[in-house]
Amino acid sequence: MTAPTIILVKSQLGENIGMCARAMLNCGVTDLRLVAPKQGWPHERAQAASSGALDVIEAKIFETTQEAVADLEFVLATTARTREMAKEVLTINDATKKMRLEGASDKKCGILFGPERTGLENDDIIFADALLNVPLNPEFSSLNLAQAVLLTCFSWLNADNHFEEKDLEEVNPSAPKGEVENLLNHLDDELETSGFFKNPSQQHVTWRNIQNFFFRALPTQQEVNTLHGIISSLSGKKSWK
Amino acid sequence: MTAPTIILVKSQLGENIGMCARAMLNCGVTDLRLVAPKQGWPHERAQAASSGALDVIEAKIFETTQEAVADLEFVLATTARTREMAKEVLTINDATKKMRLEGASDKKCGILFGPERTGLENDDIIFADALLNVPLNPEFSSLNLAQAVLLTCFSWLNADNHFEEKDLEEVNPSAPKGEVENLLNHLDDELETSGFFKNPSQQHVTWRNIQNFFFRALPTQQEVNTLHGIISSLSGKKSWK
Repeated sequence: MTAPTIILVKSQLGENIGMCARAMLNCGVTDLRLVAPKQGWPHERAQAASSGALDVIEAKIFETTQEAVADLEFVLATTARTREMAKEVLTINDATKKMRLEGASDKKCGILFGPERTGLENDDIIFADALLNVPLNPEFSSLNLAQAVLLTCFSWLNADNHFEEKDLEEVNPSAPKGEVENLLNHLDDELETSGFFKNPSQQHVTWRNIQNFFFRALPTQQEVNTLHGIISSLSGKKSWK
Repeated sequence: MTAPTIILVKSQLGENIGMCARAMLNCGVTDLRLVAPKQGWPHERAQAASSGALDVIEAKIFETTQEAVADLEFVLATTARTREMAKEVLTINDATKKMRLEGASDKKCGILFGPERTGLENDDIIFADALLNVPLNPEFSSLNLAQAVLLTCFSWLNADNHFEEKDLEEVNPSAPKGEVENLLNHLDDELETSGFFKNPSQQHVTWRNIQNFFFRALPTQQEVNTLHGIISSLSGKKSWK
């Protein structure tokens, strides 16, 4: 059973990253990834706030959320708000069950956490398969970053691990995110060539919705290959490589 | 169902008390009692650290643990260590169940938390009916005070979570199957035209897999429209109708 990966996107304070590392290690979760931390990395106050956890956990740094999730197979985005994007919303209990199921078949799961004040942006959320919501007092629901990390990691740790016993072989696992990304790059190239994006002001939103659709659809590797073939064929190309 | 009372015994820092109040209110827990807080009370930094929670929660002050638990009917003592005292040890899950049971018959429950560095003393623990243990990574199990309060309060809340969003309206429902069928017909036409199906013996299986992908992906109506646009654009057509 692989523990989930924790991805902190554009965290503002090194101290908070340290406290997240501590909360993770409390729960036996050790894969920490940082996307463009605001105060740079490594950071002295992060080290101090981690109470020694950062000696055990080696944080990996990425420029973009996209790169940080490239090798993950099931990704959750934590958010307090209901989004207009078409994504499934899982409560913490359901999200934990899902991660346990995925983990039992050795899939790599990850949880995205946004910057302290603003939370995740839609441009980060497109890489997630579902949204994770922690149901709290609706009149006072704001958690600090380390507390949100603690609740999700502890929920994972504390879940009764009876899923392991079931024989959950997945016949057709979904392709790694990086493969979906390649597919989208291929599609983007051909859409640009064919003049799909007529309205520059709409291009960003349209493209984000297209990305969201293909990430959410969780294509298998075979489906990714077929979709490459479809794009090439429709564009009048013989092959895509 | 009465929420448990949180009793902080001889807390060292006002700031930590404030963070505990915030964690409590996040979980809808509002009865806070302080036994001989080291920095006195009220405390400015507690107010700031509570992010407004102390405006809702009115902390009651007691000289001794004994007085603070006097009106409670079931009391738990949090401790990381195994004690030599003859007390039942409950994990957080079992403790939550027990509190829910007691609460259901309107008994008042409380949870004792000790000073930040040293934890509860045996002289405080004698007033508890059982010990509460949060099972964590045995090699890195030290939680800060607010995190311990958060985990116990959230466990209580989450056991019967009335804040859970039961009526999550689907903002973007998936398109009717007929619309997906239209989309697939459009795709099929263009794939035939572009010579995608080179191998007649494989055509049926390949097409079934493509259909399966788009039906499984549950596209919204907007996504169906976008996909029509993509097919037309890649095929060099201006529009699809």
